[in-house]
Amino acid sequence: MKKLKISANVIRRLPRYLQYLDRLQDAGVVRISSGEMGRQMGFTASQIRQDFSYFGEFGQQGYGYNVETLRREIADILGMSRLRTAVMIGAGNLGHALMRNFHFAECGFQLTAAFDVDPVMIGTAVRDIPILSMDALESYIAANSPDVAILTLPGNQVETVARRLADCGVRGIWNFTNEELKSAREDIVVENVNFSDSLLTLGYYLANRRNGSEQEDRN
Amino acid sequence: MKKLKISANVIRRLPRYLQYLDRLQDAGVVRISSGEMGRQMGFTASQIRQDFSYFGEFGQQGYGYNVETLRREIADILGMSRLRTAVMIGAGNLGHALMRNFHFAECGFQLTAAFDVDPVMIGTAVRDIPILSMDALESYIAANSPDVAILTLPGNQVETVARRLADCGVRGIWNFTNEELKSAREDIVVENVNFSDSLLTLGYYLANRRNGSEQEDRN
Repeated sequence: MKKLKISANVIRRLPRYLQYLDRLQDAGVVRISSGEMGRQMGFTASQIRQDFSYFGEFGQQGYGYNVETLRREIADILGMSRLRTAVMIGAGNLGHALMRNFHFAECGFQLTAAFDVDPVMIGTAVRDIPILSMDALESYIAANSPDVAILTLPGNQVETVARRLADCGVRGIWNFTNEELKSAREDIVVENVNFSDSLLTLGYYLANRRNGSEQEDRN
Repeated sequence: MKKLKISANVIRRLPRYLQYLDRLQDAGVVRISSGEMGRQMGFTASQIRQDFSYFGEFGQQGYGYNVETLRREIADILGMSRLRTAVMIGAGNLGHALMRNFHFAECGFQLTAAFDVDPVMIGTAVRDIPILSMDALESYIAANSPDVAILTLPGNQVETVARRLADCGVRGIWNFTNEELKSAREDIVVENVNFSDSLLTLGYYLANRRNGSEQEDRN
């Protein structure tokens, strides 16, 4: 696999490609051209070819892409060839929503435990995911080495908890609090889910509504 | 204001600028250079100057930007000069999390009502936001003309509900279900919050960890 420096925009399109290829595979489609893929996804064919060229040559001139191969290659690039584990910090409404409805397995993750400070919740389970005491965080992580911690706790506790997680070796943080968390250490990856950014962006498009063709550029 | 075609990437940076300028204003900072702003936000000075140039000339050579003016201009561009209203469809765990913890006002929105099919919830309220019956959706929208509908309901109901919303005139949809909702009509703006994309992206960075300087490119 080539090791070029890949822009964040290309990387953010990979999950879209994966989900699209999943649907093609479910529908029994064996091969697809960059042109057809572009039409269905709202990209240009050259954009698609360029994106994939960062990772190697998947397609064949005149044949297109083999759906299964391409899907597997993209899943590999996204690191899905190995099942990874996650723990959740904060089992409030948002935590419960994710535990109940989010398909972790489709992203190559297994959620193994949630942590909270609420004594009413501690000791219960949601969909077989045990809710444990925050006091047990360090010992659980030492024993289970989860790849990712999901922060669904109040924003004012983020910095403290992030330090605890870093200290015991968690290297990936999926941050749902509205507090932007800068990666405190170079070896920790932080992905912020920022609801405000999303609503403000929607607000922009509402205030500056254009025609449909320009909307496609949002991909 | 110039009416150039602005890329989605520039637009997605505007909320970051707004939140950063909010913090500067709270800290009593009156003016800031593009260089200093860049250092603090992890962009280059030229990137910042280029982003703002799409919307007009805010800065002055050798002076930098007036924080209050720049903040107001960006808020205007994002459409925040007018308070907008939103309704929520689906008052489950995710809906409750947003009602309880999300600061709609900071994005220029007011959440005026939530809708659900659960008879236990209908008639109650969360933080003064009434939870109404889905049967009342059309009449409420006709009477109140909300700008945005927030979809926090099960994914399999998204298409049906989106059609109902479009039919009664809602023009903005903030979609939290994991079902990608294509804008069915040109005059409707859809913003999808896709948790899978976000976790898959985190997975990519975990599998392809680089050094910190390259992480900055993610901005």
